[in-house]
Amino acid sequence: MPALTLENGKLELQERPVPQPGRGEALIRVLCAGVCNTDLELARGYMNFSGTLGHEFVGVVENSPSEHWIGKRVVGEINCPCHECRYCQLEMPHHCERRSVLGILNRNGAFAQYLILPEDNLHQVPRGMADEVALFCEPVAAAYRITEQININPDDRIIILGDGKLGQLIAQVLFLYSKKVVCVGKHAWKLKLLNNLGIDTALVGDMPAPGADIVVDATGSAEGFHTALSLVRPEGTLVLKSTVADKSQLDLSALVINEVRVIGSRCGPFRPALEALAMGNVEVRPMITEHYNIKDAVVAMEHAGFANAMKVLIEMD
Amino acid sequence: MPALTLENGKLELQERPVPQPGRGEALIRVLCAGVCNTDLELARGYMNFSGTLGHEFVGVVENSPSEHWIGKRVVGEINCPCHECRYCQLEMPHHCERRSVLGILNRNGAFAQYLILPEDNLHQVPRGMADEVALFCEPVAAAYRITEQININPDDRIIILGDGKLGQLIAQVLFLYSKKVVCVGKHAWKLKLLNNLGIDTALVGDMPAPGADIVVDATGSAEGFHTALSLVRPEGTLVLKSTVADKSQLDLSALVINEVRVIGSRCGPFRPALEALAMGNVEVRPMITEHYNIKDAVVAMEHAGFANAMKVLIEMD
Repeated sequence: MPALTLENGKLELQERPVPQPGRGEALIRVLCAGVCNTDLELARGYMNFSGTLGHEFVGVVENSPSEHWIGKRVVGEINCPCHECRYCQLEMPHHCERRSVLGILNRNGAFAQYLILPEDNLHQVPRGMADEVALFCEPVAAAYRITEQININPDDRIIILGDGKLGQLIAQVLFLYSKKVVCVGKHAWKLKLLNNLGIDTALVGDMPAPGADIVVDATGSAEGFHTALSLVRPEGTLVLKSTVADKSQLDLSALVINEVRVIGSRCGPFRPALEALAMGNVEVRPMITEHYNIKDAVVAMEHAGFANAMKVLIEMD
Repeated sequence: MPALTLENGKLELQERPVPQPGRGEALIRVLCAGVCNTDLELARGYMNFSGTLGHEFVGVVENSPSEHWIGKRVVGEINCPCHECRYCQLEMPHHCERRSVLGILNRNGAFAQYLILPEDNLHQVPRGMADEVALFCEPVAAAYRITEQININPDDRIIILGDGKLGQLIAQVLFLYSKKVVCVGKHAWKLKLLNNLGIDTALVGDMPAPGADIVVDATGSAEGFHTALSLVRPEGTLVLKSTVADKSQLDLSALVINEVRVIGSRCGPFRPALEALAMGNVEVRPMITEHYNIKDAVVAMEHAGFANAMKVLIEMD
């Protein structure tokens, strides 16, 4: 089968054998996958990943231990826990010490014709939801993670830094909780997508006033944290969503003096994400800028790094 | 009156006029003051402070708008709010936008014969409590601040980084909440003080296992944060107590991946601190290593920076 692989820093379309499911695992035929900024970071060396990239997908179950899954259209949670370690026992499978993560850590990913995931990770896609909408479930879930970690009041003033794919999804999700959301970015055309949904935006040259209750850093850049710290109010909350390969020079004294609360935030719950997509509470289609076939996956990855791209899709035939 | 002043980076004992209280303010004759690491940082340039140093003190009220204060022995909260700005209105006076802070920001401090504080900031010292115990109220309150900011369960495994004055007070306070406290430091003789109270300790060469529920960085060094991040469990809490002039190189991805919660922590509540000192729940006398008279305050500051010093006191005759 065709697979977009990363080996020793080199991206390549390779012919690979169809993978064999282990105990409790399902074989899924991928219909469509999405390129995430994390994929670009991995290609730059983040996590030292080696294998098939891709973790946003929608597919059809070809084989699974429980028969009822077979033939179902699914999305899948990307963290695969060991069920044994202390964090698994504490019901924190996302933080399993021996986890593999689809297309990110010790597990081949979704930019291939087939992938393997534990059956427990699967969620059925509602009938009538387009493939290209369903594959946003993983990043929308990551946005919903914030709502599990902090309380958001309808009066909270929220600034989201970053007008990229994740920043936009976070803005849309948090806008369901507070109307005082402003998304800050560098690209007028990207911000326009949020304006179309009634969400306020600002260009980086025209920052909103500091003193926000909640600031989310989704810039994907090492400087984002610093900017976020300058915008959050004393005793306010700074949510860190960027995973970047770079290190960042940080003046910690502002964090201490202002008693800021910083929360790292990663993967989230699929159920509310699927529901938001099904109900149209989160609008993803305008973010899709390109469709590529798997045979052009290397070009798709390149294109995803361009300033004129947002979500780039990779389709299997 | 004699006063230890910092001007253009130069520490000096100067003769200064006795200060005049403004509206709502009390004139306090200082009995005894303590040197804090923040004083040493200020002398190194932190906050660009200029004026009389010192914020840990016990004194006697000489004059005050409310007569009942006069002649009382007091300690005092160091943040002086404007009562007008949005943070004052939100009942966050410690974060007042126009605050002055005793001996730290726009207000002369306690290394002098007299100081001025708003009457609202005063707390009466219980009869029978020695001066040299009472003056620890401010740093003990800073330790108690943590208990206002996070929930501490009796089962939480807690690591405190730093065996200095603040680290030791934090270890003692948190030990009232959980017995699974370990304080990590570089000085066997300092750690011994905690061992004498039944609190576990470790030398930096022999770090406790990672995966702690709560890690407090009280190292006062820029690297403390990095070490703390390596010791806290996923979804665990990292409390930052160090205010340092230096910047820190930080790999934020670990914070995001492990969804760590970082909380900056500064000044705290005087009431529980005074109570803990009165009840003997926090033991401070063994931490006092030197007594100086105000006329030798410059030497006292120097001595406080030596490895063989812990709390250095400055007495007014």
